[in-house]
Parts: sequence; structure tokens; C-alpha cells
Amino acid sequence: MLSTDLLLTFNAGSSTVKIGIFAIDGAEARRIGKGVIDFRAEPLSLGLTKGSQTFEMPLNAEITDDLHGVIDETFALLTDHFDMTAARAAGHRVVHGGDRFTRAIALDAAAIDAIDALTPLAPLHQPQALRFIRALKHLKPHLAQTGSFDTAFHATQDDLVRRFAIPRALHDEGIKRYGFHGLSYKFIAGELRRKAPRAAKVVVAHLGSGASLCALDDGVSRDCSMGFSTLDGIPMATRPGWLDPGVILHLAGQRNQSFEGIEDLLYHRCGLLGVSGISADTRDLLKDERPEARQAIDLFTLRIAGEIGRMAATLGGLDAVVFTAGIGEHQPEIRASVARRLSWLGLAADEKANAANDFTISTRESRIAAHVIATDEEQIIAEEALSVLRSD
Amino acid sequence: MLSTDLLLTFNAGSSTVKIGIFAIDGAEARRIGKGVIDFRAEPLSLGLTKGSQTFEMPLNAEITDDLHGVIDETFALLTDHFDMTAARAAGHRVVHGGDRFTRAIALDAAAIDAIDALTPLAPLHQPQALRFIRALKHLKPHLAQTGSFDTAFHATQDDLVRRFAIPRALHDEGIKRYGFHGLSYKFIAGELRRKAPRAAKVVVAHLGSGASLCALDDGVSRDCSMGFSTLDGIPMATRPGWLDPGVILHLAGQRNQSFEGIEDLLYHRCGLLGVSGISADTRDLLKDERPEARQAIDLFTLRIAGEIGRMAATLGGLDAVVFTAGIGEHQPEIRASVARRLSWLGLAADEKANAANDFTISTRESRIAAHVIATDEEQIIAEEALSVLRSD
Repeated sequence: MLSTDLLLTFNAGSSTVKIGIFAIDGAEARRIGKGVIDFRAEPLSLGLTKGSQTFEMPLNAEITDDLHGVIDETFALLTDHFDMTAARAAGHRVVHGGDRFTRAIALDAAAIDAIDALTPLAPLHQPQALRFIRALKHLKPHLAQTGSFDTAFHATQDDLVRRFAIPRALHDEGIKRYGFHGLSYKFIAGELRRKAPRAAKVVVAHLGSGASLCALDDGVSRDCSMGFSTLDGIPMATRPGWLDPGVILHLAGQRNQSFEGIEDLLYHRCGLLGVSGISADTRDLLKDERPEARQAIDLFTLRIAGEIGRMAATLGGLDAVVFTAGIGEHQPEIRASVARRLSWLGLAADEKANAANDFTISTRESRIAAHVIATDEEQIIAEEALSVLRSD
Repeated sequence: MLSTDLLLTFNAGSSTVKIGIFAIDGAEARRIGKGVIDFRAEPLSLGLTKGSQTFEMPLNAEITDDLHGVIDETFALLTDHFDMTAARAAGHRVVHGGDRFTRAIALDAAAIDAIDALTPLAPLHQPQALRFIRALKHLKPHLAQTGSFDTAFHATQDDLVRRFAIPRALHDEGIKRYGFHGLSYKFIAGELRRKAPRAAKVVVAHLGSGASLCALDDGVSRDCSMGFSTLDGIPMATRPGWLDPGVILHLAGQRNQSFEGIEDLLYHRCGLLGVSGISADTRDLLKDERPEARQAIDLFTLRIAGEIGRMAATLGGLDAVVFTAGIGEHQPEIRASVARRLSWLGLAADEKANAANDFTISTRESRIAAHVIATDEEQIIAEEALSVLRSD
């Protein structure tokens, strides 16, 4: 590859796709731009950032199932800002790798089929990446494509941690705790190696609209709060996290709610939105003085602190806590509340450092360190893509 | 009441009923005998203990839905050993008190209806006590009856701790974490007041075939691992404890399993039995050398330790851990394993004291105390019954 070759990353979520544009510098991927399309917005547009410039460009294509029109137009718009003829590869974030994919892979036809075969494990999320992978295969057949899995980073977890107390046969058939947000945790583990190399037992709180926690021991994943599905663990924007299985039996058995109704409830109407009845966004809730808003925030931080306590038991200790992703990086109130709930473990936050979103937000005397680190899933997708392409 | 008056207690579980016979000594209830009927056994019999004597007496009555025959015959058999003409009252353990019953009550017709109205919250457990209450009302109308609730002790919990991250409306309709095993925890809290008055923040592990943990602060319940249903929390003999809600959606949506099939799976085929594929009983599993048996035990103790970590966050600290109920009182291997998993918190078990089931099983140097206390739910039922009758 030439040093001016470009690499694209696609991070497709439930309502948006984030596109990363990377220049390939020898063995390194250096980000030179990023784009985002929000499929909920009308009219549709491509938001683009290049250096300090931002652009908002209307997309006129119809949204079809195969996304061909939107992708063609997006590539055409990107051509105005980047030398798209130099694009050599596209790396995709894929939510579920099951037991089979424990590292990034080249996406040939067989691999795409194998990813599709995992759709029953993530019926709402797996199809999102597949749409882009298949569209690019059709529209840009010259691009090499790779897949990076949200689950892969957690393959190091002990079999015991991944088990539910269910019949062995179901576990063997794949009903187990896989863990998610692995690209983010891999990025954070890399940052920790450089910036806080002495912190061995670390819990990372990835707090976005989807949210989870990961227990790291010397950078290796030992536990994750999000397990089999993206519903479990801590409360999220609209998902409940930890929920007594009896609640679902009650809704189905005593209230005759349909499976589809319960699924919609759990994915879209629970979490911060459900508890507050006001908003799924912590920024709104922190500004709102109604007790319901306060309660949603308090439940969020109570459950985060509780999950950190549980994970400290998995790790057999705790040296540091890391906050990342939208909420974790930018909302000092949330971090301060979690830190207060962990003061019994010897965590003391420095008010000024926390308010400034500093890297270290714990006091010098704090027995447990607390850090804020900006995550970058696309950087990992790009690095993994490069690594796959070089090993081919 | 005369000092020779008798009080009976009924603790009806899914397959057994335990009957307590208490002499009323002034304001105190003193146990003078106990009986048990195991409805799974054939032929049916009443096992009776009086002082150091035990009796096994055949029951010839048919098991009918209303249990009239069995109860009549049981009273007749008890008459050979106790002055049943002195029986004044019967106190019942009732699983669910909902939000309404936060203390023991006299069981008049309206109260019985109100308990029945809570059946949708505990469809498999609530009917068990109701059968005995109704049968005694019919057969022994002169007996005063009282109800003691498994949920009542937890009414002190903070609203936040009791919440799931679900829509407020569902919470307001009663889908919340009630907590169970409250009679056991109330008994333990009383024992702790006497025997370890300086332990403020305590997690009690009630480990029987049903199992849960309770966080006590100065004897007051602040959290319980078993919440809305008896499925949640730590793994049990045949119930899973903590389970990703996505597992149920997967079984229903991707595998077309029926609601009844999933309910049967979760109540009867998960937990230690499911993981081991060998037995639901830790005694069998501890003796078994197959790795599946070891794995079930390890998952049990891992989850207990994790839940203790979570509860320490609820309490904001941890002074002591208490083990109780069948497994907790009699199985040093389980306690030792949990203690090892909590060594990071400064818990050190004394091997000899633990092997002897001593009251204190932690070392002198241990930062956190560990105790073994035999629980007695019937004693609480009897004391609550007396208290209700005296206040009438």
C-alpha cells in the first residue's frame, strides 16, 4: 500500500452510522476525518469533520433496505474532501462474534455468512453492520473489508464468569455471557498501558447511551456487565440493565403481554427514560429539577457503583476506575456521584480535576485512582483492519 | 391466655410444610416441638420432634386440594404428644405482602382475600400458605390465625434500591424489588444485636435450596438479592439467580419456547442442578469429583462473593458477613470458598473455627468478621403471632 492509501471505518448503530477516514502511515492508521449519518433526522444529511472544519451536507438519496443510494451519495460527497480513489479498505464494527470470532477477520463471502448466522444472538444489532458490509461488497468490490467484533476482547474471560446458572446444554448451545463494547475497552486498555501502567485491577465504565462496565486485570478482560444481550448490566438510556427474570414472566404470564411488546419495552422504554419519564439523556436529567429526573440519575450511579463492587470481587481487588464514552468523558456530576458511592473503598475524587475532565480525577491520597479517558472505537477498527490486511 | 396455651406455626413451602409447636410463656413463645410433612414422599408421613425424641407417623389421608384430610389427621396425631385442646392460635408464613403488609397481621376474611389478591406477584408460592390458612379456618375455626410476611422485613429499603430501571408506571403498579426470606433475616438481626452488637454493616447469606443475601445496616434491611420474584440474585438449587433478560427474549423469540416451558425451566431446571447436570444439592456436589460438580459450586460461591461486593456498595462498607440456613450453617467448604473470594476486602477465615461451624469463623486479624448463625423462621412467626394477638 502507498503511504497515502486511505482506510474507512464503519460503526453502524441502531440509528446512526459513524464513518472514520484514516490515512495509512506505514503500520499506523491516522485519522484524518470523520462523518456521521443520523437516520432518524429529516432531511437526511452527512455531517463531516476534517481537521477543524465541519460540514453538514444534505443527502437526497432514498433510504432503502440495501442502502445503496445513501452509500453511493456519501462516497460522492466524501470525494470533495478526500482522495477516495486511494481508499483501499473498509473496517466494520460487528456486534457479535459468538464463540467463533475472537479476533478481527477479513470479510469474504463465507465470513459474511458466518456473521449472519450469529444474528439470532443479536437480532436487533447484527443486521446493522451486515447492511453496510453487503452494500460495500456490491458497490465498491475493490475495497478489502474487515470485521472487528464487540465481543472479541472478552474472549479471555474465565468460563465460570461467562456462565449463567442454566442447564449446561443451553450454555453449550451459546447462551452465555459474551460481553460487549470490546473495541472501546481494547482502546482504553491500550491507553492505560501507556498512561497508568501500574494500575493492574481496573474497572472501566463505558457510559454512553448504551453502557457497560468491564473488569480488566493487567489489560485483559475478566468480566463485563453486559453479557448475553445488550440489555443486561447497568441502566442505559432506554434499556433496563439488571432485571429480575420474574418480571418478564409476570408481564407475559399475569399480564398477557406479547413477546414483541416486552421486547419493545425492554429495548426502547426502560432505563433512564423509563425511570424519569422525562428523557433518556443524562444531560437533560441533570438540568431538570423534578425528583423523577434526580431519581433516574441516582439509580444510574447506584447501579454503576454496585456493579463496580461486584467486579472488584471478580478481580479480587481494585486499583483504579476509568470513566469513558459520552457520559463518562463529559459529565463530572455522574463521575462525582459514582466516586462518592465508592468512598468506602477509599476512592476520593478531586473536585477541581473532576470538573475539568482531567485524566486523573482522584486525589493524591485516594486509595483507588480514578481516570477519565476518551475512547475511540474507530481507531481500534482501523488498527485491526490494518493488522488483518498485513497478515493476509 | 393461660401459661400452658399452645401456638402453632405453619411454614408451607413448595413441597413441604413445617409445623412449629410453641408453648406461650408469658410474652414469650418457647418451642416445644416441630413437625414436617414432605408431600413428595410416598407413603405420606408426619415427622415429629419433641425434645430429644423423634417420631415418624404414617398419614393415611388422601392429599386433596383443600388438604382437609391431611390436616385433620395431623392434628389427631399431634394430640398424642401435645395438649392440642390448649392450641389457641396458628401463625403462618406468607411469601408476599406486597406494599400493603409491612408487618404481621390477624387473618380475618378480608385479610385472606387481600393476601390472595397478591397471588399474581407470586403465583407459585402465595397459594401454598393460603391452602393451610383456609383449611384451618374451616376445620379449626376457634384458632386465631396470623400471617407473617417474607417481604415485610424489607419495607425499610430505600425506594431507589427497590427500583428496576423500568417505566415509572410499572413500578407504581407493583413491579419492584420486594425482597424475601425476611423472617430469617429478622431472626438473624436479633441474634446479631445480642451476639455481635458492634457489627453495623452486615451482609447475611441465607443459603438454603432457596437462597438470597440481605444487606443490614444496624439491623435494618437495606438491600436483598432476591427482589421481585424468587428467581433473582444468586444461583439456587434449581433457580438461576441473576439472568440477562435477553436470555428469555432469545428463548421465546428465537427458539419459540412457550411461556410455560420457560417458567418451568427457570424454577425447576436451572441453578446448581442445571450447571452440574448432577444434583441440586451442594452436599452431593461437594462429594462428587466430576468437574461439572466443581463448576456448579464455584459459580455459586463466585456469585455470592460478587453479590456481597455489590451490597457493600449499597451499605457503603462492610463490617461482617453472616452465613445461615442449611448450606450456610453446615457446609464449611462453601463458607471457606466465599471467604477466599473476599480476601481482597480483608476477610480471613479461621480454618478450625470454620470446620467446627463456630459462631465466629474469621481470624482475630480479619478486617471483616464472619459468623455462622442458625436461623429460625418459625420463632419469628410465633413471636409475631403473639405480638399481633396481644395488640388485638
